[in-house]
Amino acid sequence: MLILSSPSGAGKTTISRMLLADDDEINLSVSVTTRPPRPQELDGVHYHFVSDAEFDRMIAEDDFYEWAHVFGHRYGTPKGRIRAGLKEGQDFLFDIDWQGTQQLFQKDQQDVVRVFILPPSLDELRTRLMARAGDSAAVIESRMERARSEISHWDGYDYVVVNDDVYECFGKVREILAAERMRRQRQTGLIGFVRQLMAD
Amino acid sequence: MLILSSPSGAGKTTISRMLLADDDEINLSVSVTTRPPRPQELDGVHYHFVSDAEFDRMIAEDDFYEWAHVFGHRYGTPKGRIRAGLKEGQDFLFDIDWQGTQQLFQKDQQDVVRVFILPPSLDELRTRLMARAGDSAAVIESRMERARSEISHWDGYDYVVVNDDVYECFGKVREILAAERMRRQRQTGLIGFVRQLMAD
Repeated sequence: MLILSSPSGAGKTTISRMLLADDDEINLSVSVTTRPPRPQELDGVHYHFVSDAEFDRMIAEDDFYEWAHVFGHRYGTPKGRIRAGLKEGQDFLFDIDWQGTQQLFQKDQQDVVRVFILPPSLDELRTRLMARAGDSAAVIESRMERARSEISHWDGYDYVVVNDDVYECFGKVREILAAERMRRQRQTGLIGFVRQLMAD
Repeated sequence: MLILSSPSGAGKTTISRMLLADDDEINLSVSVTTRPPRPQELDGVHYHFVSDAEFDRMIAEDDFYEWAHVFGHRYGTPKGRIRAGLKEGQDFLFDIDWQGTQQLFQKDQQDVVRVFILPPSLDELRTRLMARAGDSAAVIESRMERARSEISHWDGYDYVVVNDDVYECFGKVREILAAERMRRQRQTGLIGFVRQLMAD
């Protein structure tokens, strides 16, 4: 379970897409949200868009790893598909904030790798947010406030990468993923391999 | 402190040389030994070759991270240069066995990354040992016995890499090193960077 967090605009969504396009063994954990879709957002791809009643039902059925309120809407990470995939040796990518990260980490410390992406500067972050269509000045300022708050939790992560250049940053995240897959505990076939080796 | 361990002939010396040639920021920790030099081995490059009396003096002065008996000779990892280098942010590569690894890890759990290199098979290992000039059949068999013993300690390492192909194996070790350098606790400039970021 690879967690990518960053303040909005620092590049985690772009990096996530590059990683998913590059690597067949990793799947995106698609969050559930009660917020209405933005233009071009697809249900089941960017989010599972659900009603408040449906979100309530999922909470009641303990169907979330974690969930939180953000800007008056609720966002959650559903358990079902991920648990099944992990058992089959699949990897999952989580594009979640520091609170979701804390909750997920508390539930599964062994399997979670936490990566925080920092913007090169806050000015650069504001520029990127302003270039994004459809957000008002007030929304951008509230996102900047939230970015400061998000950045202040950088020390709750295993790895930190500064996104100066998106391709370089992507390469670094890919290196982290490759290395973490070489960890002894994550190589499920290794015990059998060593047993075979010693039996030769 | 990056530790590479493997049974003799599984490739750690080759991988170490490739890493040292490729990466200016990592230095080899040159071991001290009482064993006589083999042909082409240079003092201060492959080992620091010392007398038994000199080795005794270093033990008495607590000048080793770890030391051990192997085939009737003593091998040790001297502290001085490494401690100074670590303080300046340098990385060090250790080409040591599982016992040395355990001792080093006990002394500095935070700074140590342990990588174990496995041969693809024991037949392949024997072939590689036989191709090496200067060792008798008896020495090769004792090395094979030692290899089995070394391999049985594979589970005391953070990462495990199978050396099917030396270039691929080198690439993997390099990825591990790159990822470990991105760990939050290892990026000494990060606290200052975030402070500067938030002050913008």
